[in-house]
Amino acid sequence: MFTDEYYMKIALQLAKEAFFKDEIPVGALIVANNKILAKSYNLTELLVDVTAHAEMQAITAASNLLGAKYLINCTLYVTLEPCTMCAGALYWSQISRVVVGTSDKNRGFLSKGLSLHPKTEYVSGILENECSLLLKNFFESKR
Amino acid sequence: MFTDEYYMKIALQLAKEAFFKDEIPVGALIVANNKILAKSYNLTELLVDVTAHAEMQAITAASNLLGAKYLINCTLYVTLEPCTMCAGALYWSQISRVVVGTSDKNRGFLSKGLSLHPKTEYVSGILENECSLLLKNFFESKR
Repeated sequence: MFTDEYYMKIALQLAKEAFFKDEIPVGALIVANNKILAKSYNLTELLVDVTAHAEMQAITAASNLLGAKYLINCTLYVTLEPCTMCAGALYWSQISRVVVGTSDKNRGFLSKGLSLHPKTEYVSGILENECSLLLKNFFESKR
Repeated sequence: MFTDEYYMKIALQLAKEAFFKDEIPVGALIVANNKILAKSYNLTELLVDVTAHAEMQAITAASNLLGAKYLINCTLYVTLEPCTMCAGALYWSQISRVVVGTSDKNRGFLSKGLSLHPKTEYVSGILENECSLLLKNFFESKR
């Protein structure tokens, strides 16, 4: 039951909440031992803060809950490949796994030649079509 | 009077506050039209949050004060070259100037091949020795 698809569906639901708030629709959650520690979605417009990406909020919230800076045994699920800012934060967190929906060819950390922490396992392409379509619909609605 | 050295001295004072709180001593401030909009220092240990670098806090605080996501006509002063996370946040902010004390050869964004926003002017080496010495003293005290 607790597959990567299961959690990515929740991340996608969070991304849809962002969409309805007129935010670029990216959702994230952090899970450890099949428990959800943090749920978030992009809030850069509403919070008027470029640092309020879904991943950043999730990292801060999970650390807060755990009382720990390092997110050992935690998995981040996020609908879009992290940017350099979020990849940098994930690096510092030494998170155990990062699971991504769809890649971001222009602004994703991989296109900038960056890597996550050596301790971090990286998986991409979970519910890729759904995650990608939501973003496409958002940007088309803005034209 | 309001030179880069003037503001870097304030950033250095903030870094010293971090030192006395047993945090890696990095201080930052954001200035616009000779007014200080935000002052901060690294708080990753006290806040138990890897995202609590001086620059991240300063960006959030300045945006909050201005009610604006983009830090046009603002200058960030920071005692140490930003990491990839902070450089990513600065990129999104489109901040007009970034003034750095000392470079970070291992973890700075330049060593990772990253750039700031094309609209951002970058200056480094202001009070370099003082900024560098403070960090050196901190890490020596930890041995």
